[in-house]
Amino acid sequence: MRYASHTFDDLALQASFEAGPRVVTREDIATFARLSGDHTALHTDPDYAASTPLGGLVAHGVLNLAVATGLAFEMGIFEGTILAFRGIEVRFDRPVQPGDALSLRLTVARLDERPRPGRGAVTFDVDLSNQGGRTVLSGSWAMLMARRPSA
Amino acid sequence: MRYASHTFDDLALQASFEAGPRVVTREDIATFARLSGDHTALHTDPDYAASTPLGGLVAHGVLNLAVATGLAFEMGIFEGTILAFRGIEVRFDRPVQPGDALSLRLTVARLDERPRPGRGAVTFDVDLSNQGGRTVLSGSWAMLMARRPSA
Repeated sequence: MRYASHTFDDLALQASFEAGPRVVTREDIATFARLSGDHTALHTDPDYAASTPLGGLVAHGVLNLAVATGLAFEMGIFEGTILAFRGIEVRFDRPVQPGDALSLRLTVARLDERPRPGRGAVTFDVDLSNQGGRTVLSGSWAMLMARRPSA
Repeated sequence: MRYASHTFDDLALQASFEAGPRVVTREDIATFARLSGDHTALHTDPDYAASTPLGGLVAHGVLNLAVATGLAFEMGIFEGTILAFRGIEVRFDRPVQPGDALSLRLTVARLDERPRPGRGAVTFDVDLSNQGGRTVLSGSWAMLMARRPSA
């Protein structure tokens, strides 16, 4: 879903925002392997991956995180208002395989006006889930966002 | 640097491993924007980026994290022994700009034999630094690694 751009002052505790689904493809996994340099066999060798309990290639955890950031961009809430991505704390809860369709929900967990005039620190709870509604990645993101000009 | 493959039992507390440098390019940033879907102007619009205090394009934080995972792969310590990447806790300490050369140091911070027979949980302290030796990303990674067959 596409929302209006939000400043720090437009965000309410527990407000939540959704985006997706986006399908993760084999090509996405191959592109991520080349870009990152992480060629671990589970992500790049179909024969090896077929021999594992998962039965096939699995997306890199950090690719799933990258997809989540793209879905967050698509929401539109950060447009012109995000000043910095300060940190990440996530678990990789379940494997993602080619063809899985991922959806993101961000929920405002903490608002802190302190850092400096003109900006506020926002912590979002992050939930990335697959087409079956099961969480594949969860945790929190810390962002620095612009205040409303009048604030 | 390239090391031998390490099982859980080969790792000692405070052992550290290094890899890099790897240069981050404008093309890497453009590829990451397409792959993730995160087209935030600071990463994709040179004119906008030139108008910010940083004076030019900046790499996505999660791209820096992806580069760190590729450098970890290059070390060789995880070859055939990594079973799962369980979670990440990182701060984006400093911006990375095209041309910056990043190096990774992983340090064994915690070893836990408990999870299940045949595997152990390892927490690595993570430090990704630039050509000036300044940290751009820091935190910890939680991995599940295979035990030595005799262990």
